Amino acid sequence: MKLGEGVEAAIHCAATLASVEGNSTMPGAALAESFGLSPSYLLKHLNMLTAARILESVPGPAGGYRLAKPAERITLLDIVLAIEGREPAFRCGEIRRNGPVKLDASAYVKPCGINAAMLKAERAYRAALAETRLSDIVATYQAEGDPRSLAASCAFVERHQRPQKSDPNSQPRERTRQ
Amino acid sequence: MKLGEGVEAAIHCAATLASVEGNSTMPGAALAESFGLSPSYLLKHLNMLTAARILESVPGPAGGYRLAKPAERITLLDIVLAIEGREPAFRCGEIRRNGPVKLDASAYVKPCGINAAMLKAERAYRAALAETRLSDIVATYQAEGDPRSLAASCAFVERHQRPQKSDPNSQPRERTRQ
Repeated sequence: MKLGEGVEAAIHCAATLASVEGNSTMPGAALAESFGLSPSYLLKHLNMLTAARILESVPGPAGGYRLAKPAERITLLDIVLAIEGREPAFRCGEIRRNGPVKLDASAYVKPCGINAAMLKAERAYRAALAETRLSDIVATYQAEGDPRSLAASCAFVERHQRPQKSDPNSQPRERTRQ
Repeated sequence: MKLGEGVEAAIHCAATLASVEGNSTMPGAALAESFGLSPSYLLKHLNMLTAARILESVPGPAGGYRLAKPAERITLLDIVLAIEGREPAFRCGEIRRNGPVKLDASAYVKPCGINAAMLKAERAYRAALAETRLSDIVATYQAEGDPRSLAASCAFVERHQRPQKSDPNSQPRERTRQ
């Protein structure tokens, strides 16, 4: 079983965007620089997060990405499913039907017990991922991260965040997407 | 996230081998036929199960595969790890270290919180897989499977199992591997 490398990048970027002020954005190139990633590599994953309404993409000179909702309402499960897709890890090919004795479909009305057991484990995995919010990741980092790393991250965000003209306290966030 | 198709084949084959009598074996070709799979495709997975000591492979004219231990002592986790490898699904690339500000290794002594949260979910997944024994899969199938499917499976096993010369009640199982 393997998750794509994009999951690590996606969670780190979302956690970084949880630290920008107000409705400021951060360009994809800055997010890529922040983790030593190729911007074109990262763009694919940022687009997936945007399609899943975890991020929003603001066009224009002060454009970039920001969270589409508060970090308290984004879980690791949301991010993993946005990047990896919603299909379960175990994909039942119903090979039980392929044997030498052909039975009609009525013999297979009950789900295969192997599939049922695998899906039960997947539910446990997803439930654990859903228990961790993006805000928990950020809070843990702020509480336990190395002070030098924290200071470097804060300085990076301050340098690269792009304030928006609209006042976040009086206007709803734009929902524009690229 | 995706598990390889081999997992489904491996669990089905192990469940079939849980039904052979005594220390009889079943040839890989019969297992492949039983699920409409290519023998060469299945061989790879049978070899993985053998390497993980879930199956044993008996050479010779009455050779084939059989469980290396009772079905009560084999879990779905054992089978999944045998086929997919033991690495966690989330592989932390430590991209937190790759940013524009280079800090020495002492800044990263504590594990990344993202990795920790992902590994916690993986533990939940593995714990759920470890709760289901191969014997549970077989018992559920025997209790709830369609009677026509059960009858076809039993007839197939009876036709293809290969009794061994040694008496399973008086001698330990051979541990020979191909």
